[in-house]
Amino acid sequence: MSLRVTFLGTSGAVPTTQRAPSAIMVNREGDRLLFDCGEGTQRQMMRHGTGFRVSDIFVTHLHGDHVLGIPGLVQSWDFNDRTDPLTIHCPRGTYSDIDDLLGVCGHSPSFRIDIDELAAGDIAHETDEYVVRAVETDHRVTSVGYALIEDDRPGRFDRQKAENELGIPPGPKYGKLHNGKSVELDDGQVIEPDDVVGDSRPGRRVVYTGDTRPTAAVESIAADADLLIHDATFADDHAARARETKHATGREAGELAAAAGVKRLALTHISSRYGADPSPIKAGAVDAADAEVFIASDGQEVAVPYPDDESAL
Amino acid sequence: MSLRVTFLGTSGAVPTTQRAPSAIMVNREGDRLLFDCGEGTQRQMMRHGTGFRVSDIFVTHLHGDHVLGIPGLVQSWDFNDRTDPLTIHCPRGTYSDIDDLLGVCGHSPSFRIDIDELAAGDIAHETDEYVVRAVETDHRVTSVGYALIEDDRPGRFDRQKAENELGIPPGPKYGKLHNGKSVELDDGQVIEPDDVVGDSRPGRRVVYTGDTRPTAAVESIAADADLLIHDATFADDHAARARETKHATGREAGELAAAAGVKRLALTHISSRYGADPSPIKAGAVDAADAEVFIASDGQEVAVPYPDDESAL
Repeated sequence: MSLRVTFLGTSGAVPTTQRAPSAIMVNREGDRLLFDCGEGTQRQMMRHGTGFRVSDIFVTHLHGDHVLGIPGLVQSWDFNDRTDPLTIHCPRGTYSDIDDLLGVCGHSPSFRIDIDELAAGDIAHETDEYVVRAVETDHRVTSVGYALIEDDRPGRFDRQKAENELGIPPGPKYGKLHNGKSVELDDGQVIEPDDVVGDSRPGRRVVYTGDTRPTAAVESIAADADLLIHDATFADDHAARARETKHATGREAGELAAAAGVKRLALTHISSRYGADPSPIKAGAVDAADAEVFIASDGQEVAVPYPDDESAL
Repeated sequence: MSLRVTFLGTSGAVPTTQRAPSAIMVNREGDRLLFDCGEGTQRQMMRHGTGFRVSDIFVTHLHGDHVLGIPGLVQSWDFNDRTDPLTIHCPRGTYSDIDDLLGVCGHSPSFRIDIDELAAGDIAHETDEYVVRAVETDHRVTSVGYALIEDDRPGRFDRQKAENELGIPPGPKYGKLHNGKSVELDDGQVIEPDDVVGDSRPGRRVVYTGDTRPTAAVESIAADADLLIHDATFADDHAARARETKHATGREAGELAAAAGVKRLALTHISSRYGADPSPIKAGAVDAADAEVFIASDGQEVAVPYPDDESAL
């Protein structure tokens, strides 16, 4: 199952020539989930070839730099005769803000749009293979982050043991056992899945905070996350400003990542004051975290492999 | 007096990787006037170095592709501690739409914004040297175009005649005469401006239509215009669609330009269906017009010289 994250906008509140306002496309095996949608996201999608078929937009909070791309994107979908419904997930209490945003210029799209208000902890989106859950964050306005959490996968199938020790002939029985069903052999012997299948293995986990101070809830849900995308608006030199404006520094993101045992940390929402050189933001995070750390850049695509899939690392 | 036009967005309703939604910056001797402000205009301004100090935004109509960049631009000005007031000119009846647009996300800028509703024919903006006048257009919603019309300039000063025939000594008297004041020579002789100054010369004229069918009002105000920027959403192959959707074809823009005696014709609002090859739009216009014709492209800067200033042509 492929899982790719494309950073479409990595700027702070004010964009720059290099960074558009916040937007992240997550593509899981063809499911396109858009997290935040700052001004210009539709052109970023075109430019970076993410594809346009998005089922869900997950809004972290109602600041312009995270949502002003929604009306134009909706309008373009409408011009392109979209019929698939769209769900916009947003923090509780922001329904009317999203509704106002969709209604600017008197535009009324011809496809269905559901607005789904969420409290922290709520499941925003659920499939047979993963959920997207809202996470408590701490910003100046009502906000949530989001965690994409895959279901556990079956454990490894011990083919050696199945064939040589237990004498199970290769064939459909192997699949049944791997999927948790017992099978009966020709001699009447019943084999249980546990006999040949190891412990279930955790799925992947990607967490996106939106704008926030570090929170315990993010640290908790980011435990062992394969990728944490954290607010890192400032470097150490503006730590006080980060606290005042309810953002985080690279170092704070790194400390949280270290506490949570995160594998990879992407720093985003980079203030325009670091336009010429964002390296101080990264330096603080690298100092604090054990994880692989990078400052996300617009258009960057990151594959998220299974932790035990060495080939994809 | 410099007069430069920078095309910031030249797409039709749906942007492309090459073309952003509608926006045009006019810089007249440091006065920055922004005509329409589609999504992403603030980054286009940064990318193409137009400068950020804009006094007035002239909105042709309230379709998203012409205005969705306003809230983000206003927000960025606010983050950058703008204090200068801003005037947003818009067609009569659209005050509340502009107001709604400014209010999305509950944003309330700390600088003053005046919304100036206009009927066709109204003067939107006036200085000692030029006016911007609203022009009747014909689109699916309430709309106006805009004409920047410079005042007449004094005629040429006949220095040869002044010095040699009339014996006026070179000095401050020359300036007085050129500015329309009579002067008295040492011998008591009174020289009138008409004696040494030719007929006044017309200023420059730039007309921008926004989205529209060809109209008589545009043709009239574009008489002898130095630059006409006209809707040319379609080529001949979609002439019927141009009529239905109240846009123009390149040929129709060219015909109007020819009838008005326009010197240069810029075609804009290029439909994404001509993304790969917009040449059919230009071909129709070239066929119909005597003017210099070009399809405007994003980032293109065009100087508008005085008609009699050969050096700047």
